[in-house]
Amino acid sequence: MDLEGFLRKNKLREGNIAEVKRGNTTLRGTIVPSKDPAILVLKLDSGYNAGIKLGEISEIKKTGEGKRVGKARAASLKKRAGLPTVSILHTGGTIVSRVDYRTGAVYSSFEPADLLTMFPELNEIANLDSRLLANMWSDDLRFEHIGLIAKAVEREAKKGVAGVIIAVGTDNLAVAAAALAFAIEKCPIPVLLVGAQRSSDRGSSDAAMNLICAASFITKSDFAGVAICMHHSSSDGKCAILPACKTRKLHTSRRDAFRPVNDEAIALVGYNSKEIKFLKKDYARKDKKGKIVVKPNFEGRVALLKISINMFPEQFEFFSRNKFKGLVIEGTGLGHTPGHCPDEITKKEHKEIFPAIKKFIQHGGVAVMTSQCLFGRVQMHVYDKGTDLMNLDVIPGEDMLPETAFVKLAWLLGNYSKEEAKKLIGKNLRGEIKPRTEIEEFGFEEKQASKPKGCSH
Amino acid sequence: MDLEGFLRKNKLREGNIAEVKRGNTTLRGTIVPSKDPAILVLKLDSGYNAGIKLGEISEIKKTGEGKRVGKARAASLKKRAGLPTVSILHTGGTIVSRVDYRTGAVYSSFEPADLLTMFPELNEIANLDSRLLANMWSDDLRFEHIGLIAKAVEREAKKGVAGVIIAVGTDNLAVAAAALAFAIEKCPIPVLLVGAQRSSDRGSSDAAMNLICAASFITKSDFAGVAICMHHSSSDGKCAILPACKTRKLHTSRRDAFRPVNDEAIALVGYNSKEIKFLKKDYARKDKKGKIVVKPNFEGRVALLKISINMFPEQFEFFSRNKFKGLVIEGTGLGHTPGHCPDEITKKEHKEIFPAIKKFIQHGGVAVMTSQCLFGRVQMHVYDKGTDLMNLDVIPGEDMLPETAFVKLAWLLGNYSKEEAKKLIGKNLRGEIKPRTEIEEFGFEEKQASKPKGCSH
Repeated sequence: MDLEGFLRKNKLREGNIAEVKRGNTTLRGTIVPSKDPAILVLKLDSGYNAGIKLGEISEIKKTGEGKRVGKARAASLKKRAGLPTVSILHTGGTIVSRVDYRTGAVYSSFEPADLLTMFPELNEIANLDSRLLANMWSDDLRFEHIGLIAKAVEREAKKGVAGVIIAVGTDNLAVAAAALAFAIEKCPIPVLLVGAQRSSDRGSSDAAMNLICAASFITKSDFAGVAICMHHSSSDGKCAILPACKTRKLHTSRRDAFRPVNDEAIALVGYNSKEIKFLKKDYARKDKKGKIVVKPNFEGRVALLKISINMFPEQFEFFSRNKFKGLVIEGTGLGHTPGHCPDEITKKEHKEIFPAIKKFIQHGGVAVMTSQCLFGRVQMHVYDKGTDLMNLDVIPGEDMLPETAFVKLAWLLGNYSKEEAKKLIGKNLRGEIKPRTEIEEFGFEEKQASKPKGCSH
Repeated sequence: MDLEGFLRKNKLREGNIAEVKRGNTTLRGTIVPSKDPAILVLKLDSGYNAGIKLGEISEIKKTGEGKRVGKARAASLKKRAGLPTVSILHTGGTIVSRVDYRTGAVYSSFEPADLLTMFPELNEIANLDSRLLANMWSDDLRFEHIGLIAKAVEREAKKGVAGVIIAVGTDNLAVAAAALAFAIEKCPIPVLLVGAQRSSDRGSSDAAMNLICAASFITKSDFAGVAICMHHSSSDGKCAILPACKTRKLHTSRRDAFRPVNDEAIALVGYNSKEIKFLKKDYARKDKKGKIVVKPNFEGRVALLKISINMFPEQFEFFSRNKFKGLVIEGTGLGHTPGHCPDEITKKEHKEIFPAIKKFIQHGGVAVMTSQCLFGRVQMHVYDKGTDLMNLDVIPGEDMLPETAFVKLAWLLGNYSKEEAKKLIGKNLRGEIKPRTEIEEFGFEEKQASKPKGCSH
């Protein structure tokens, strides 16, 4: 029997609430459309969907009719005098969107009316201007999109809004934040990237809190510049305002997936209390007279290459062959790659890697080293392997995240000469590089104790 | 004046201890050889080297003659009755090696006599057998080396040793541990990978503690199998015994850089107390009658590809063009890549990515998805982007680390048919995949709330 027959037999329809027994487990939820006619899909109260094979269901009963989730009714949109204006630019993603559980269809709420219906608290914080820039996966972001978003922020800033919220899919939210931080060279207002790990109409959604904390922070603090506003912990207490260039999505599904790396949060914002606690003091301040300056260009032929064991020179030659202009290497440890050491152990003739890296640079490419450790700093003067790479003109990326170095290099090559870009990549422009400690500045080199025998490098 | 003249003028020589003033800072340490004649290099008490430009030195004075660090005198090597034997296999790296600060030359201590001179406590724990397998950077590891190390472990195990310590450079220590865990299919004795972030003769070295804790754990616990023994915290209190397939180097320089990901430590070992505290109960036990089984083969044409924004199809086509047999994708979020959506925003015709992935698989390649979030689980049924990739036959890598999935795929393709490899990659073989929680096993799918307009996928 297929799902249609199964539902008919049990006098159920999509949208009903049902209790299902499978083995020793009982699940309760709303029946939602299933792609597979052999599987019943229940939307649980937790917000998750559970798929249950029809053959494994020992008992099913209707416990409620279920309600239809229709299109949000238009909320009154009177602008409230005395409230600042916050612009919300939508690029897609889970935030401010919802599912009609009865039909399974998706509909996106990009109108201020819908937003206010979903998050009435926003109405008390700010007058909202909501604009749809795109409805895309953040995975499909290209540098051109970053440039367009930066120009959209510029337009909003010139209207005199208190700040801008950019709603982005979470997969590349942190990468987009870093890229925007470079593209917006002078930013006199707060620009917060906000996403949601769970869709807005689910009980477990983080959308409301992230959005409301962002609006609070924009209107109530003196912060200016690009940053991220996401859950601080998995509980619904606080959001963290995170540095645009030093934050990474470090969990696939948790609501507090976004974490600062080699840095700390800028501030915490209480959801209920609306209390703002700054953890940093050295942030840029709002500047009513300041003008926004946008440099939206990026060089597209830039790549990120993660290092592993057992690599082949072709994996590096690819980038010179295909005329890439920039390459950020996500090396191991303090900033290393496989080398050019003849293999004494297996006696095999492996082709050498270093000449392939050299070729990329000699063909005009700029190569920058970062570390796949993520935490800590590249230190290429410690081991000979690092100094050899530096001698090939691979530039140390300091304590930058690989993704940040990648968007920075693309931005530098899009706006400066190659020689200027090479000078600027290791300099801190937007908080992407933390200064070394005083003693490090003194010129550290930690010697390699064990040097491979018979290796000329 | 160059360094030679500078030292002569100040009646100093390499090896002396000196106090140097530069601006407001005073540094004290041993004068060690410098590659740059304009820079004085001091080995500080912290173990770090500081390079100071001669022109910036306002004052220098000798505070001690310094001692010569010569070759270790041979220690007595009587085998002590009643003590178990532990084999140490050296592959290179900072551990059990030292620098002669007077000459700057490096010399490696691979003889048991030297080891016992450096770490006399080892003598009380076990009789040591020390063998030099290789002296290489862990960055230069290839799968052939992993096979050779596995066979060397097999030889030691057949001699009846209590356990094996493998000294490896830290850059790929965790990757080597995962690869060995697969290559050693049945492992009736403990095999611990040990490294050091600081060389053994430095005050701040972690070598002694890591080595001694490993020997203690091997001789005093009932644990069997491949694991990692490294600092548990940055203080010198305890080492952690870490799971071979679920550990990652997550800091470039800290001594406690190695952290479990989606898992916990197996046990903690007290350095002074020698106390062993198991955090897991479900580990494999020593088996005196058990035979070691080694499958040392790996398929070399397997690669790890990290996803970023703004990628080009050529970056995927490379792998079919170059006849790679396996590809582990380090995707975004729950397991995504850039897609094939026509770009409505920039109106540009970007070439599509998905056909390039499809081509790789149609040409006989096996593609596996992992997440660059590192923490959490790939869940490709949640968003359409994931299901589209699964429809191309990209296999979800569950909660495996990208590096672990990479060595596992190479090992599977080296030992099984392609179809078997495809079945086994998502199954837990060596603790590399944690089971889903009960409710997840029930067949979760979390629906995407916001679907891009006009996209056919």
